[in-house]
Amino acid sequence: MKIDQIETPAVLIEADTLDRNLRTMSDYCLGRHLSLRPHTKTHKIPEIAKLQIKYGARGITVAKLAEAEVMADAGIDDIVVVYPIWGESKWNRLTALAKRIRISVAMDSLLIAETISKWASLAEVEVGVRVEFDTGFGRCGLPLEQSSVEIADRIRALPNLRWEGISFYPGQIMGTRAIREKDIEVENRKLDRLYSLLDAAAIPYPVVSGGNTPAALESHRFHGVTEIRPGTYVFNDRNTVDAEAATYADCAATVLATVVSTSVPHRAIIDAGSKMLSGDQLLTGERRHFGYVLGPPGLELEDLSEEHGHLAVPESNSIRLGDRIRVVPNHICPCINLQDRVYLISGEQVLEEWRVAGRGKVN
Amino acid sequence: MKIDQIETPAVLIEADTLDRNLRTMSDYCLGRHLSLRPHTKTHKIPEIAKLQIKYGARGITVAKLAEAEVMADAGIDDIVVVYPIWGESKWNRLTALAKRIRISVAMDSLLIAETISKWASLAEVEVGVRVEFDTGFGRCGLPLEQSSVEIADRIRALPNLRWEGISFYPGQIMGTRAIREKDIEVENRKLDRLYSLLDAAAIPYPVVSGGNTPAALESHRFHGVTEIRPGTYVFNDRNTVDAEAATYADCAATVLATVVSTSVPHRAIIDAGSKMLSGDQLLTGERRHFGYVLGPPGLELEDLSEEHGHLAVPESNSIRLGDRIRVVPNHICPCINLQDRVYLISGEQVLEEWRVAGRGKVN
Repeated sequence: MKIDQIETPAVLIEADTLDRNLRTMSDYCLGRHLSLRPHTKTHKIPEIAKLQIKYGARGITVAKLAEAEVMADAGIDDIVVVYPIWGESKWNRLTALAKRIRISVAMDSLLIAETISKWASLAEVEVGVRVEFDTGFGRCGLPLEQSSVEIADRIRALPNLRWEGISFYPGQIMGTRAIREKDIEVENRKLDRLYSLLDAAAIPYPVVSGGNTPAALESHRFHGVTEIRPGTYVFNDRNTVDAEAATYADCAATVLATVVSTSVPHRAIIDAGSKMLSGDQLLTGERRHFGYVLGPPGLELEDLSEEHGHLAVPESNSIRLGDRIRVVPNHICPCINLQDRVYLISGEQVLEEWRVAGRGKVN
Repeated sequence: MKIDQIETPAVLIEADTLDRNLRTMSDYCLGRHLSLRPHTKTHKIPEIAKLQIKYGARGITVAKLAEAEVMADAGIDDIVVVYPIWGESKWNRLTALAKRIRISVAMDSLLIAETISKWASLAEVEVGVRVEFDTGFGRCGLPLEQSSVEIADRIRALPNLRWEGISFYPGQIMGTRAIREKDIEVENRKLDRLYSLLDAAAIPYPVVSGGNTPAALESHRFHGVTEIRPGTYVFNDRNTVDAEAATYADCAATVLATVVSTSVPHRAIIDAGSKMLSGDQLLTGERRHFGYVLGPPGLELEDLSEEHGHLAVPESNSIRLGDRIRVVPNHICPCINLQDRVYLISGEQVLEEWRVAGRGKVN
């Protein structure tokens, strides 16, 4: 099948770009002796998770148990859930997974750790544990203080939990390269403080898991990090370009859309709105526009309705009804999460159709 | 099943509130002699579409052909697609639908009309047509001028198209009641101008289809409107409350979420982020917060990650790990579009589980 036979809107994945992105990250990790445990929330596609493993990822990261189940069903056998797990049915599902695969959980609560320990003991399984610390993003994670280290020590002693180390998510590090430079310095002072607290308490931390996509290729500059969990790097998006962590040539995923209306002057409407691209604004900068239009220059995706993308069209532009354009989404993760399928392409050729098997796995 | 057995996050639909919302709109339309043709993009659930028909809706509105197909499969036999249809496979699907049900399309282009006429002739079917005019939203629709009326006249003469009238979408009318008051005046001047142009050309317009949710119960104040297509009214959301078109007691759909982390001071994290609520900001006003938290007062949904809702928690609040809260989303349409299923509830009882059969039907 050729691309022009695909009904729009549709997500296209450029095979060569995907492959290059996968190689770049895995070569980087190999060169810097970092474990790569990619966050598969970005793609939710088992085929891509398997490519990541093939290219040297040690295992994968997921946000939700239901995503772990999808990936385990596809044969991935080493998964970290970087999300606090709460609820009887979830603890039950977690121990069921632990019977099938090597599974670990990042957690920031003694209560959750004790509960999982109890469930794991009853089920006679082992669940890996990383204690999550908050190094500045202010979302999850224990504060960097003595009492937290005491909690970590108690978690470490719980039965049927396999102590792996610590985890953090530097989500606040997302500016341009120069901004990140300073942010990483701040982060390192926090990490150093955490290590001294842990060392003083004689708590080992074989795994120090950190990393995000904008700063992924600078991960060696974070003190003590042994493992990174970047997600977006497989595809990249307007946010990663904005963060100077990729160029548009590195953006493997685009939304193919058709111009369906040109009746309003200086306006063209494409058949991809927020139900296709997601309504996510840019994370930094002016936060204007809802994606980057490849192709005809000067077109700006000014606004989104649910099914309409509103393009501002300069006078000079000769865009016509039925024209097809490609858009790099602001944020590729929620965009992929809206798709049932994506198309792997090479040039004009469609190589494969992949099901987004982890889509909508919210639990 | 009781609500406390539902795994979170999940969308709950309060049966009584849904019923009241459906009745209110249908009573209003009956009282004002308006045809009700609800836009089902909000719920994408055939069971609700059937309730709308039961309560007197003449037929339904959809945005995409794939949504029409889902609703036709469920037995709905009168559907208007208010979206320009472009592409061979789509024209083919449209005529296939026209063989099964009464289908009409809003369009703003002579080229699309001629093409659909040709396809309908070949397939020996009839497709209803409404010409779309732009009354100020600036998205789709022909401009309010003589040349557009000439296009409408040519469309009216095309074979195998059933002329129904005109259509507009006053999407710009979305402020509070007082703001809307003035906006409707402006809109009426435009509509009057359109009617004089159409009258001068002796073009009949038995259907004048307009309406949106914020102004739905003021539809009788729009000159000449015969049919309205509100969507959000079935559930309502923070946007409709903000527009003084509903209260929180009228919001039938809420997201049930669990507090999964309280480790960061003055912060609680719930298991519903932008992949559950959508990241849509409010349409008007300060545009702050990503939903309205029912229940414990003082909790504000300050930020969303993909799977985390970031609650700001005042000092006084005693929110605890494992607590369940309900959130009214800013915009219910993209939220429902993220769900595979929703739960119909009454008090603490789960009455039914409904599949969101039209979810992800982007084509």
